[in-house]
Amino acid sequence: MALSTSNSLSSSLSSKLNSKPSDCFDRFRKPNSIALRGSPFVSPSSVELKRSVLLSRASSKIHASAASVMDQSVSEVSSRAPTIVEVDLGNRSYPIYIGSGLLDQPDLLQRHIHGKRVLVVTNDKVGPLYLDKVTEALTRGNPNVSVESVILPDGEKYKNMETLMKVFDKAIESRFDRRCTFVALGGGVIGDMCGFAAAAFLRGVNFIQIPTTVMAQVDSSVGGKTGINHPLGKNLIGAFYQPQCVLIDTDTLNTLPDRELASGLAEVVKYGLIRDAEFFEWQEKNMAKLMARDPSALAYAIKRSCENKAEVVSLDEKESGLRATLNLGHTFGHAIETGVGYGAWFHGEAVAAGTVMAVDMSYRLGWIDDSIVKRVHNILKEAKLPIAPPEIMTVEMFKSVMAVDKKVADGLLRLILLKGPLGNCVFTGDYDRNALDDTLRAFCKS
Amino acid sequence: MALSTSNSLSSSLSSKLNSKPSDCFDRFRKPNSIALRGSPFVSPSSVELKRSVLLSRASSKIHASAASVMDQSVSEVSSRAPTIVEVDLGNRSYPIYIGSGLLDQPDLLQRHIHGKRVLVVTNDKVGPLYLDKVTEALTRGNPNVSVESVILPDGEKYKNMETLMKVFDKAIESRFDRRCTFVALGGGVIGDMCGFAAAAFLRGVNFIQIPTTVMAQVDSSVGGKTGINHPLGKNLIGAFYQPQCVLIDTDTLNTLPDRELASGLAEVVKYGLIRDAEFFEWQEKNMAKLMARDPSALAYAIKRSCENKAEVVSLDEKESGLRATLNLGHTFGHAIETGVGYGAWFHGEAVAAGTVMAVDMSYRLGWIDDSIVKRVHNILKEAKLPIAPPEIMTVEMFKSVMAVDKKVADGLLRLILLKGPLGNCVFTGDYDRNALDDTLRAFCKS
Repeated sequence: MALSTSNSLSSSLSSKLNSKPSDCFDRFRKPNSIALRGSPFVSPSSVELKRSVLLSRASSKIHASAASVMDQSVSEVSSRAPTIVEVDLGNRSYPIYIGSGLLDQPDLLQRHIHGKRVLVVTNDKVGPLYLDKVTEALTRGNPNVSVESVILPDGEKYKNMETLMKVFDKAIESRFDRRCTFVALGGGVIGDMCGFAAAAFLRGVNFIQIPTTVMAQVDSSVGGKTGINHPLGKNLIGAFYQPQCVLIDTDTLNTLPDRELASGLAEVVKYGLIRDAEFFEWQEKNMAKLMARDPSALAYAIKRSCENKAEVVSLDEKESGLRATLNLGHTFGHAIETGVGYGAWFHGEAVAAGTVMAVDMSYRLGWIDDSIVKRVHNILKEAKLPIAPPEIMTVEMFKSVMAVDKKVADGLLRLILLKGPLGNCVFTGDYDRNALDDTLRAFCKS
Repeated sequence: MALSTSNSLSSSLSSKLNSKPSDCFDRFRKPNSIALRGSPFVSPSSVELKRSVLLSRASSKIHASAASVMDQSVSEVSSRAPTIVEVDLGNRSYPIYIGSGLLDQPDLLQRHIHGKRVLVVTNDKVGPLYLDKVTEALTRGNPNVSVESVILPDGEKYKNMETLMKVFDKAIESRFDRRCTFVALGGGVIGDMCGFAAAAFLRGVNFIQIPTTVMAQVDSSVGGKTGINHPLGKNLIGAFYQPQCVLIDTDTLNTLPDRELASGLAEVVKYGLIRDAEFFEWQEKNMAKLMARDPSALAYAIKRSCENKAEVVSLDEKESGLRATLNLGHTFGHAIETGVGYGAWFHGEAVAAGTVMAVDMSYRLGWIDDSIVKRVHNILKEAKLPIAPPEIMTVEMFKSVMAVDKKVADGLLRLILLKGPLGNCVFTGDYDRNALDDTLRAFCKS
């Protein structure tokens, strides 16, 4: 197993990206054509999922509304005391701790440990960087707790049943019992697999998320969606299973490769588009800072993303409707990830291209103004994210994977599309099929 | 795949059993020694889990208490209109339908189907017998519903991840979406695997149980425990996931091999021992009828078992305490099943031997009278069930498997033991370790 220090890992990947920009971003090409039509503005009264309505129903436990957070000094949220965003799910509620240096505060983790045995699930990239630190945080001043670990290969292509079994094997060989705790240390793949393992081991054990990528910190570690991929589709096998807490130490981003940083920002952009126009505007002004890893800007983006996610999950844990809107761009994106082979594109890269496709389709339906289309293109390009699927994707490949999407109901594919002013979207199967076909044809050569 | 008619299947297995009794039952040998000590009766006040207390807390939805059922004519419960036992779990409550000819009443199933697509999960023994009948019941007068099926190999040794993946493969290849229903048609293995597949497919889809063995009808199909085995232990990977309904057509028992019938009766005996002395006494008087497949007696035993199970599950769905008592004999039994190789002994056979071991240990602890020990031996022998583990089991094999039992907490193995008058038990880790060692040594040659 190759060990890398944080700096060498980050800089080696940066230099690889920088030295071969054309190779690396060739697949982030423009669509064959995007026919921008007129400006069919939809009046706010026709919009089904308005942020104002959602906010009025929102959990009182969200510590600060998005509006009030905007007034905070962004430097406040990167101070050493953790910012806490609460996910309000009745007796399964839990805190998200956000801040710098949180892995040096053992009490934050230790208060959520059940029993005496802990299994840290991580991968061969993140483990060498943070496993010792996490073990120290779990055990310092707490000699009764013993920590085991299982180190999985890194990457989306390993998010499968075979890899998952390694977690069960380790837990069973180590004679873990129901009074144990699984800790996910890594990005979205690790969080999803460790969470599903925790859900299924002995029919459910205690679980903590320590996300170390922007993607996991702003999205996948929050809300209890866990699972693995099937060769025919993403996340088709899994469980809704909530953690005891999510601990986001923003210092872990110091070692994140640039490409992974950008991938996570695709989900940050998503929150702005589907429900938080002010946040989107903030991103437009601060994308350069985010890309330069300005700690305050990153901390603010993470906090505000978590607030949006927590609010949605609190209102619709099991995705009966509202929660599906978090999947803007994901139906197209999952088709790309499956089509190119898991891991060839990062999740956020596929989501970015998928978002452009969903926005294109929304525009074709006459549901949004062309200014939104342009703003989406611009912000994703500034984040160095792709704005079109890779050339190998065909219309048939999209249709084939989209047919097994979890949002299909009785054969009807429902999509998240933008509708109305910036920050509004719909989750619907009631759209003109021609618009979908036109979008697919516009983005695929065949 | 060999197809068998119901009669040939049953009779071929019967004749095999009859022609070679010594081979088949050699492993059902007596323990090396059971040192029956004095009669240390424990006063009822010291008993932790008394049936009277439980009944007073019991769900009002249980249609008839065990006492009133005793007064019913047993012929009533085998009439064509289904008897209904309700499992009371708030918004996840569901009915258990019990009766003869229920698969000829399509409405019973159809009212619980969600969406238009149904996947019947069955095995290569039960499928040839009942799959067509179930398909007919699902679709008669209901042309919108389409039925797919997946036929798994029969037996406990196939209750693993590899076989489970076949269910996911079929559902995904058939493009099933969240609005589908999985139907388990078979015994406990099929029910556990289909249930776990339903829990995990797209993070949870609708699910119906059609148990076709006594074991599944009286125990495993009720209560939502689902899962698969790991090479190192039984049921270590799974979920609590409740069905929409359980449909028990007692006619399916007509094709059940004798050995499987007896296996199921081990769980019937269990209910009497842990919480229903009157039921145990009824069994003592009616075991010959049960073994002769008297329809009325079987229907009554199934109904009363389901009532006991439903009551316990309603009070403690996730097994925080009370529900564990349903595992009398199972900790020893799982060790036997794992030790001899999954499938070599039927689950109920292992539970029977395990029950004798738990009773032996309870007696060594001075918690029960020797009359209970004798009555347990007698009733299990009458049911042609083993009263000792197979010779290959060693003390070390028991200890090794029991160490990964789900009832271990922080390293302490908790057991279900009888304590006090017939029908009372405890679930406890507070026992003299010497008694456990003595029991293991008494039943193992090394």
